[in-house]
Amino acid sequence: MQCHAPIAVEVTRGPLVESRHAVRAVAVDADGRHVAAFGDIEAPVFPRSAIKMLQAIPLVETGAADAFKLSSEELALACASHSGQPEHVSRVEAWLKRLGLSADDLECGPQWPIHEGSAHAMAGRGETPTQAYNNCSGKHTGMLSHARHLGEPTRGYTAPTHPTQRRALAAIAAMAGMRESAIMLGTDGCSLPAVALPLERFAAALAKFGTPTALEPKRAEACRRLFAAKTAHPHLVSGTGRFDAAFMPALKGRIASKSGAEGVWAAVVPDRGLGLAVKAEDGTGRAAEVGMIELMRRLGILDAAELGAVAKLAHPTLSNRAGRMVGEIRPARDAGF
Amino acid sequence: MQCHAPIAVEVTRGPLVESRHAVRAVAVDADGRHVAAFGDIEAPVFPRSAIKMLQAIPLVETGAADAFKLSSEELALACASHSGQPEHVSRVEAWLKRLGLSADDLECGPQWPIHEGSAHAMAGRGETPTQAYNNCSGKHTGMLSHARHLGEPTRGYTAPTHPTQRRALAAIAAMAGMRESAIMLGTDGCSLPAVALPLERFAAALAKFGTPTALEPKRAEACRRLFAAKTAHPHLVSGTGRFDAAFMPALKGRIASKSGAEGVWAAVVPDRGLGLAVKAEDGTGRAAEVGMIELMRRLGILDAAELGAVAKLAHPTLSNRAGRMVGEIRPARDAGF
Repeated sequence: MQCHAPIAVEVTRGPLVESRHAVRAVAVDADGRHVAAFGDIEAPVFPRSAIKMLQAIPLVETGAADAFKLSSEELALACASHSGQPEHVSRVEAWLKRLGLSADDLECGPQWPIHEGSAHAMAGRGETPTQAYNNCSGKHTGMLSHARHLGEPTRGYTAPTHPTQRRALAAIAAMAGMRESAIMLGTDGCSLPAVALPLERFAAALAKFGTPTALEPKRAEACRRLFAAKTAHPHLVSGTGRFDAAFMPALKGRIASKSGAEGVWAAVVPDRGLGLAVKAEDGTGRAAEVGMIELMRRLGILDAAELGAVAKLAHPTLSNRAGRMVGEIRPARDAGF
Repeated sequence: MQCHAPIAVEVTRGPLVESRHAVRAVAVDADGRHVAAFGDIEAPVFPRSAIKMLQAIPLVETGAADAFKLSSEELALACASHSGQPEHVSRVEAWLKRLGLSADDLECGPQWPIHEGSAHAMAGRGETPTQAYNNCSGKHTGMLSHARHLGEPTRGYTAPTHPTQRRALAAIAAMAGMRESAIMLGTDGCSLPAVALPLERFAAALAKFGTPTALEPKRAEACRRLFAAKTAHPHLVSGTGRFDAAFMPALKGRIASKSGAEGVWAAVVPDRGLGLAVKAEDGTGRAAEVGMIELMRRLGILDAAELGAVAKLAHPTLSNRAGRMVGEIRPARDAGF
């Protein structure tokens, strides 16, 4: 494998490049071999919400998912950064109720729905959001589920020392092939520990998640169920108008993808045995999205029909408030880093 | 003058740098001399809304401001990217009425208020925004004012060929010391022409705006009135919780500043005879804000008391949805570019 410069993504306006991004990108197989690398893939990054599918492993592995008869939709929500639309929030609320809990037991903090129309409709009803509207509420409800199943206290479940977080960290470390002590911790927007690991270790964990053949049976089964749930319900993982909700359906279940704050994107490609991870150095989501599809294009992961199906995501146009096309976001023609 | 690397701005989370930005920055005097330069300051950039104070020169210079008895508040709105709060929108609507026009005559397109509380209150009343809520509605009303004053058609005033745009371009070119034909055009978010010029030429124009001693009297007077209006009404230029609305009051009228989309920031420092301009290469506003104050610090433009007054802007902390401090944005300790 040859090392390359980061993938360059540029934003144009009329005749000029207006802004420019550097995107680190890596593809790793389930044995941890690097298939492609662009930029520094050894430096630790916070995958943020892109790691939710790994954080959800204990939800299935502990037996909590079966004990509470969680649906595939609920497993998708456990891996979601949802938009707070009614179909997201009502499902989380019903799930919490089955646990004997409510939105008040979440520790993620309230958030106005990401989906503008839902936020405005809510304001129109004179309501303010509960914690169930937080984009992470499904993940938190998943964690409350294994705490509940194992008879652990639910209060304080977001602390790094709580058993739910110990299990999540252990699963992430094992999947990444790292010692837990080598994983640095920050705090995420939703109060959970935010783990940091090298981009290539994150991609290795994603590869194992999609190709869990060497894992112990219970963990392998957890990965398979979560992959199936994510790809079956992309709208529940994300929301109207957002990348994952458009990308996964276009790929018809071949690839599971997940955004993370600060320009991270994760993709799991089981039929190639690969995990892919990108990080825009400057933390911008638009760069991560275009960079991820460019990585897939360079690796030949998408065929011509698939490239056509994701063309608007791979190369978005920018319109102004009057609806006129004023620019585009695209992979740069030269690397330039 | 020595050329330096761009100013590096970093975003931390817990123990790590999570994201990193490169900010081009330049300080120029009214004679066009470079006082400091960081990164490529010759490449053309779109100042976007940071150029509004220059675009507003014809509003005063043509006599339209006096003919319509525009207040200092209205001149501030002509230079504004306002937040669509009631105090912004009601003033624009009253001004349009004095012109014999209404929000329907604007060509900026509608926009939900930038200020979330105002957007939610509006949704709560079952309303949707008119074009008067667009953050650029004051600038557009200023342009309609000189069209009206000079008996020109108001319809189509956003076209590059309309006399209002020809006057704005001529003023910008003259202030920047450039030929009009050397200024490339794109289209802005509000449908007006977006001009592109080297960052150092933009800063030179800002310096002349703040130190208009060599300009012809009518233009010099226009610059002085617009500078006074901006610094007298920072809230009208911006809105609750935003950078310019906090920065200008902290500097007590010494400095006029203006944000632009895609990571541009402009500052006019008459008592040093300087114009300052920054452009975050990746287009992020957070980097431009911190980079601008870092430029001022490096140049000794702010004294200790002023640095204290802008400390939260110079070095913002990041909190999560539960209100816990999770990171910060700061100038990088090493340049690294």
